[in-house]
Amino acid sequence: MSGDERDTSGATALLRTLHGSGVDVCFANPGTSEMHFVAALDGVPGMRAVLALFEGVATGAADGYARMAGRPAATLLHLGPGLGNGLANLHNARRAHTPVVAVVGDHALTHAPLDAPLQSDIAAIAGSVSGWVRHSASTADVGADAADAVAAAHRGQVATLVLPADVSWGDGGRVAPPAAVPDRPVADPGTLRAAADALASGEPAVLLIGGEATRAAGLAAANRIAAATGARLLAETFPARLERGAGVAPVGRLAYLGDAARHQIGAARHLVLVGTRSPVAFFGYPGKDGDLVPDGCAVHAVVDGTGAATAALEELADLLAPGTTAVTAAAARPELPTGELTVASASAVVGALLPEGAIVVDEAITSGLGLPDATAGAPRHDWLTLTGGAIGYGLPAATGAAVACPDRPVWCLQADGSAMYTISALWTHAREGLDITTVVYHNSAYAILRMELAAVGATGGPAAAGLFDLGRPELDFTAIARGMGVPAVRATTADELADALRRAAAEPGPHLVEAMVPALV
Amino acid sequence: MSGDERDTSGATALLRTLHGSGVDVCFANPGTSEMHFVAALDGVPGMRAVLALFEGVATGAADGYARMAGRPAATLLHLGPGLGNGLANLHNARRAHTPVVAVVGDHALTHAPLDAPLQSDIAAIAGSVSGWVRHSASTADVGADAADAVAAAHRGQVATLVLPADVSWGDGGRVAPPAAVPDRPVADPGTLRAAADALASGEPAVLLIGGEATRAAGLAAANRIAAATGARLLAETFPARLERGAGVAPVGRLAYLGDAARHQIGAARHLVLVGTRSPVAFFGYPGKDGDLVPDGCAVHAVVDGTGAATAALEELADLLAPGTTAVTAAAARPELPTGELTVASASAVVGALLPEGAIVVDEAITSGLGLPDATAGAPRHDWLTLTGGAIGYGLPAATGAAVACPDRPVWCLQADGSAMYTISALWTHAREGLDITTVVYHNSAYAILRMELAAVGATGGPAAAGLFDLGRPELDFTAIARGMGVPAVRATTADELADALRRAAAEPGPHLVEAMVPALV
Repeated sequence: MSGDERDTSGATALLRTLHGSGVDVCFANPGTSEMHFVAALDGVPGMRAVLALFEGVATGAADGYARMAGRPAATLLHLGPGLGNGLANLHNARRAHTPVVAVVGDHALTHAPLDAPLQSDIAAIAGSVSGWVRHSASTADVGADAADAVAAAHRGQVATLVLPADVSWGDGGRVAPPAAVPDRPVADPGTLRAAADALASGEPAVLLIGGEATRAAGLAAANRIAAATGARLLAETFPARLERGAGVAPVGRLAYLGDAARHQIGAARHLVLVGTRSPVAFFGYPGKDGDLVPDGCAVHAVVDGTGAATAALEELADLLAPGTTAVTAAAARPELPTGELTVASASAVVGALLPEGAIVVDEAITSGLGLPDATAGAPRHDWLTLTGGAIGYGLPAATGAAVACPDRPVWCLQADGSAMYTISALWTHAREGLDITTVVYHNSAYAILRMELAAVGATGGPAAAGLFDLGRPELDFTAIARGMGVPAVRATTADELADALRRAAAEPGPHLVEAMVPALV
Repeated sequence: MSGDERDTSGATALLRTLHGSGVDVCFANPGTSEMHFVAALDGVPGMRAVLALFEGVATGAADGYARMAGRPAATLLHLGPGLGNGLANLHNARRAHTPVVAVVGDHALTHAPLDAPLQSDIAAIAGSVSGWVRHSASTADVGADAADAVAAAHRGQVATLVLPADVSWGDGGRVAPPAAVPDRPVADPGTLRAAADALASGEPAVLLIGGEATRAAGLAAANRIAAATGARLLAETFPARLERGAGVAPVGRLAYLGDAARHQIGAARHLVLVGTRSPVAFFGYPGKDGDLVPDGCAVHAVVDGTGAATAALEELADLLAPGTTAVTAAAARPELPTGELTVASASAVVGALLPEGAIVVDEAITSGLGLPDATAGAPRHDWLTLTGGAIGYGLPAATGAAVACPDRPVWCLQADGSAMYTISALWTHAREGLDITTVVYHNSAYAILRMELAAVGATGGPAAAGLFDLGRPELDFTAIARGMGVPAVRATTADELADALRRAAAEPGPHLVEAMVPALV
């Protein structure tokens, strides 16, 4: 395809431009206004369309896909309500700095003034999650719009292209050449030098990393810096993609709860930020400061979550730790437990059995408390977390990660309450034959909210407690999964969980294990 | 509770004000920032909190509730992502002119400047569906804000109150007295007189009604007008609440597809709008005008969807048809069919068995084509439709309708594809023991999109067709329903469907029948 190809519909120009720009997967939940886009798919065979039964599955899949593929997928959503349904997982993608090209169909330009029933302010909704929004205005330009959208997404953000139906169905579309993929912004030399001086000062310092720095190369450099300077190394609380396990330089994560995070940061005089921003508490609590930077601590913001964090760390390591070698995690697995299934024993089972090269999608919430320790020495793997706090990301993100990496096993470690927001992702797991093993931690509660109720200093009675109780009626995730085409079993002991995970690993395609764990709280 | 009650938290003041203003149900899916609201529920026992596992269930339930109760419910949603998840059904509520008080929790005012992970522009998202948005700024005023929200909702719109956590947990809340419930705007006398003249002119005229005019009193007046003047009477395509059945004056609905609607309107010289707005096609199609008003037709907009439509029609009827009595539908049911289950036979089964006083929530889409005719002479019932086109409304709206009318049977007639957007509503059906019988029309397709693909003039190949195919893998709605606590059976013949519906009617509480119907298209 060339930059001046003509005589094609807008939809075809859009799809060919996306494909030529390296976007070859589209997670789709279309409606009438997207029919020409859908019809054009057959003319662009390199574009894989993956159907989701709910838009939040499509957007979460695009997030999981790009975290693993390193390049954006597209989504196809239906007007304002479709975008609304996809918004929560676009929010998570935004906080992960994930590149996403969100194509949102709109009414024909000629139809929009009529305020038809599905008309709404798409740009306003999109603006809340997108770093880039464009309402495509003409068939002639939609190819160029698509190329710009891909380039914008590569800046580590959601790029939303609103596609009017008549721009899509019009003739005279032109395929645009790929726009240059922008480089990650590099550190300002002065800031980098000041950070190096701070780390070398001998004063208490914390090196907080995120973005691309939580991959192996960044972690190695960060560990060298910490070893040479005595700085405390921490990763941001919810990394988009954390490489870890045997052979990878390890890192602890800043705690979720503000008090614990404050304890980790301690009386640091210097906080050096590489690939992340200054830490704040997830929520505000009565009488507590949400800013986690201690009084008197100097903050050195070297690069943010979209920046060239690995290069910055390597430069710092060359300055500060020229002769130091990074320590890496030793291979070590917990003993396979037997008997009672608890949060602890379930974590040990995962640690004992996690396969080489696994991608772990972690939305286990309170049931995942023991997972980081139990898997620290497991074979090398990637760990994807809930960056934006909008629950319902696990099953969709696993979908996208499995599409991105068909040769790697995906383990989706999923709390029960949050599973229900986007449960239809299981159907896409089955439809696409994805090698995803989902563990649903069935504790019949929004256990995190029981914790948070206490944390905010509130006391509830039975009415409040009822809103955290998912056991009336009891959900049956094996029935739900089978109803969507995913083989499923229930595990009530550690042995049964281990057996189920081994059987799942032995057979390609999706599986679900319902792990009956008591709630932590 | 009095207007100057003090010494209470903001959350308690809010809840007591809502309750005092006639809002006594809250459809909730809370998170950390809503914990003080949740804790305060135990102090306001008249407020019933109904838990949803997904925000779209909560908002759709609030829509269904208010359509039947005639007064708003509240929702409780968690920040921008929670509102995003609820947006599609708030969009439907907006198009139905349903009063809803959407309470959306937000970060503490002190926390918001930190741009914590869950921070986003709630007001921008809310603005796309809300006629009224307020960010509550102080504990002292949150009671008054709540009273204003209820009054705003009563104008026939979504009123969104954004509730910062510290406004909620602060002391010094004051319960506000109820604000006056606004009257529906009445018709301008000149416009009403012009409409009467047009209807009396003998020229071809269409009387198009909506809003409150699709209840029995408005329908009776409209029928009298039509009988006396020869005007063609039609209801808007998707009425919020249509009273119908034996003993109610009947009305046909404007067709969904523009060509059919144009045929109904014909060469009208006058279009009189009472309780609705000028008709437009649902979508734009290549080469077709979306405006359904014929050339040369005068439009008389008497009152819109929020206006005093019944009074306007009664005034017109008094002027135009003083001696005319409204015709009402005769009691008549289709014969109970046997044998093959088709869209037609399934409709006949519903028509043969629909119980007296039923509330029908209709999201049957293509599988519902025969329902209006088959149920026209069934015992008197209410019919709720998908006003805004955002699918995933049926199961949630049924939830709300059943909460509003515990003594009436609710029949939720639900397409399979759209069921999957908000499928977790079934769990709330079970949890609350709601008397809802859901029929899922299982045709394994987005059949409407097959129709629309042809309607927009596009031709797809296998890739396009794949995106309408819900049969790979086959969904099993009985398994899914049982997994959420709802007894379910599959019906493969008309006889089995009838048996299942009779058994469901004989036993209180929720049931689901999976009707295996072939796709129309």
